[in-house]
Amino acid sequence: MITPSLIKELKALLGNDNVMDSEVDRVSYSYDSAVLESVVPELVVRPVNSETLGKVVSLCNENRIPMTVRGSGTNLSGGTIPSSTHGMVVLTNGLNKILEINEDDLYAVVQPGVVTATFAAAVAAKGLFYPPDPGSMAVSTLGGNVAENAGGLRGLKYGVTKDYVMGVDFWDVNGNLIKSGSRTVKCVTGYNLGGLMVASEGTLGVFDQIILKLVPPPAASRAMLAVFDNMAKASETVSAIIAEKIVPCTLEFLDNFTIRTVEDYSRAGLPTDAEALLLIEVDGHPAQVEEEAQKIMSLCTRLGASSVTAAQNAQEKATIWQARRDALPALARLKPTTVLEDATVPRSQIPAMIAAIQSIGKKYDLTIGIFGHAGDGNLHPTILCDKRDKKEFGKVEQAVDEIFEHALALKGTLSGEHGIGIAKSKFMEHEVSRATLGFCRHLKTSLDPHGILNPGKIIGG
Amino acid sequence: MITPSLIKELKALLGNDNVMDSEVDRVSYSYDSAVLESVVPELVVRPVNSETLGKVVSLCNENRIPMTVRGSGTNLSGGTIPSSTHGMVVLTNGLNKILEINEDDLYAVVQPGVVTATFAAAVAAKGLFYPPDPGSMAVSTLGGNVAENAGGLRGLKYGVTKDYVMGVDFWDVNGNLIKSGSRTVKCVTGYNLGGLMVASEGTLGVFDQIILKLVPPPAASRAMLAVFDNMAKASETVSAIIAEKIVPCTLEFLDNFTIRTVEDYSRAGLPTDAEALLLIEVDGHPAQVEEEAQKIMSLCTRLGASSVTAAQNAQEKATIWQARRDALPALARLKPTTVLEDATVPRSQIPAMIAAIQSIGKKYDLTIGIFGHAGDGNLHPTILCDKRDKKEFGKVEQAVDEIFEHALALKGTLSGEHGIGIAKSKFMEHEVSRATLGFCRHLKTSLDPHGILNPGKIIGG
Repeated sequence: MITPSLIKELKALLGNDNVMDSEVDRVSYSYDSAVLESVVPELVVRPVNSETLGKVVSLCNENRIPMTVRGSGTNLSGGTIPSSTHGMVVLTNGLNKILEINEDDLYAVVQPGVVTATFAAAVAAKGLFYPPDPGSMAVSTLGGNVAENAGGLRGLKYGVTKDYVMGVDFWDVNGNLIKSGSRTVKCVTGYNLGGLMVASEGTLGVFDQIILKLVPPPAASRAMLAVFDNMAKASETVSAIIAEKIVPCTLEFLDNFTIRTVEDYSRAGLPTDAEALLLIEVDGHPAQVEEEAQKIMSLCTRLGASSVTAAQNAQEKATIWQARRDALPALARLKPTTVLEDATVPRSQIPAMIAAIQSIGKKYDLTIGIFGHAGDGNLHPTILCDKRDKKEFGKVEQAVDEIFEHALALKGTLSGEHGIGIAKSKFMEHEVSRATLGFCRHLKTSLDPHGILNPGKIIGG
Repeated sequence: MITPSLIKELKALLGNDNVMDSEVDRVSYSYDSAVLESVVPELVVRPVNSETLGKVVSLCNENRIPMTVRGSGTNLSGGTIPSSTHGMVVLTNGLNKILEINEDDLYAVVQPGVVTATFAAAVAAKGLFYPPDPGSMAVSTLGGNVAENAGGLRGLKYGVTKDYVMGVDFWDVNGNLIKSGSRTVKCVTGYNLGGLMVASEGTLGVFDQIILKLVPPPAASRAMLAVFDNMAKASETVSAIIAEKIVPCTLEFLDNFTIRTVEDYSRAGLPTDAEALLLIEVDGHPAQVEEEAQKIMSLCTRLGASSVTAAQNAQEKATIWQARRDALPALARLKPTTVLEDATVPRSQIPAMIAAIQSIGKKYDLTIGIFGHAGDGNLHPTILCDKRDKKEFGKVEQAVDEIFEHALALKGTLSGEHGIGIAKSKFMEHEVSRATLGFCRHLKTSLDPHGILNPGKIIGG
């Protein structure tokens, strides 16, 4: 319980300004980016160094106070919605130092509250490259990225956040600092606890610092836009590019509804009668880029694209990617509520998955825009609705259930990059089996016996 | 306890031939590739399908029988030495099916007993590439590779086994099949249990099947050999190559002692007066390979290589790599005992680490050959000795302790790719802290309360 004496202790520890209990502060941190009910926490605290962060964890454990660690609250599955009205939100924005960028050994050490884009820019300024680029990177934090195993547009070629985590130091529930991984390319010393922390959504430990892998940047890149009057042709083209042994850094898709909506929004000159657009970028050595771009353009033409163009300069490239970046904001302004899903299938199952989503949209008479990462099978069906319309929202929930069913039947997964949080925890058992869910719950209870670390997320309960 | 009735039950389950209790069978599986005392198990069993594997695990748990899962026993840290003379060795060589190689979606599904080289060849036959190449890959199994997070020569550019594990299904100690990961490029559904299983050395679960990521193979490659009359120049060259934003697929190093020993062994024409050799390979698009090879050769010359040559054909390339492959067998024949270490440091600390190893060799009057993966800081100091000479072996143990001390002081790690097993478990606390070791022991006890899964490995006890 959060008692006056605990608040006093926290104020002494963190400073008065970093312990917030006004209604405006508490309401500010009661929700995240998921379409879910908000939960107003009892207290919001903001540690500004490692030691006080650890102390906050042990105080929460001793006092049995549920705590939800929050970076920028861009979570799309409710992972940063407070677990309880009697709980605490712990902000990481006071722990925002880039501690080291090592150019010789190609790694960086960061605190969890560093903003992804700030970090990527600092790395770029040293002539290096941090590839993970979740859609929210302008505001999301690296701690949140690791906790969610954030993906992004470059997943196909460069992998996701997990592929860049070399080590995580974290506070366990007792306030002990646990170390894992190292600054070396290879490390097999002890359990891969950093691997366990990735995607654990704040339920197993509280990140103190993270070691991230860096790579040299590609020397060149080329963006292309291919227009299709037929969905099947676009899907076949995605498979044909991979079959050609080309791995684009980005291979994105917009359906007709999304194309029209983006064009209404931005007037960028998109072909509104196209059934599908593929937005493709290859990067690497200039000769490789040139050759792959030529091959891709030939493939697109051969497989029935009505047009395919390559960006000739930075501005044309920016125009292509702006269309993709506009997809979500353009769709979101159509209706009060935007339900953004990320059920994911093996790449070759994209045509089947798109057909299923379209048929579900018709069945429930819902407006669903589809766009996303075609190259890695991570589609974002986006259902536009009004949550206040109970009848309609009931249909939305049924449609989402069916989308999950289809993804699993196609050997896919509930979530490619948005996490389970509270939005999808009820579907977990269906994908992973009852035994697996039981194993996960046992693991959680073992590492957090009083259930204070972001309880209720991922595994329910 | 292994009772006659349990043996009878196992024979009914697995078939008489797959339950072995003769002395010759038991002695055959009493050791692995580490220089450690053998432990003769009471029984050796060989399940040939998934269900009976799970049943063996639950029988061991019910009867409190320590079990050590064994692939090919190439482990270098004692991870596959039986935990107890009252325990069971579980062979995986009956679970050796490649269940699927999916060319459209770039993954494969395998049973744990598939031999690494067999798998790599099957993947290559489909025009794809599985990069991890541990030194023992001709005989090692994929289950063992995942359990140890095996590295290899291509770690610098392509990463290690962990970077290719998309999912692991494993039997928990109660004989429940636990699922993790998926066939999709992106998956954040539930805890990253596959990540936890990587490098867990058979102590947390028993692998049933593994989903592995595949990539397109590089179109071209070029191998080079650079000769240095000075160790510092060779080390500077390694750093200079990385600073040039070139990431070779392989960047290996041999010291003078190793060069002379290999030349004695193979008469390949190596320069026996050289202080160091760098063996370098770049791969990728032909134009990139050409350009990077030219840059590397210029760098080598500029930084003081006495000669640098590029392989002009497959045979010359094979000659270069044979020299590297001969390093360990050539060294090993000099003395009865070969202690192969793999303390690892950040790449930029290689000169300091080599100097420390040489000085330790002098201090204890020991013969130490040094070779290894210079590009990722993963050196293999190899101490040649005779274990039966107690006095000398005492010095070897002190030297190994000091090598670890230096690696940690240089922000390195105890093991880059050979694992902790029983060989290094006593050093764990020094690297990871007492709290971390406590956390790991608690995790182990939670998931294996009766301590039957390869007990004593990694965390001691």
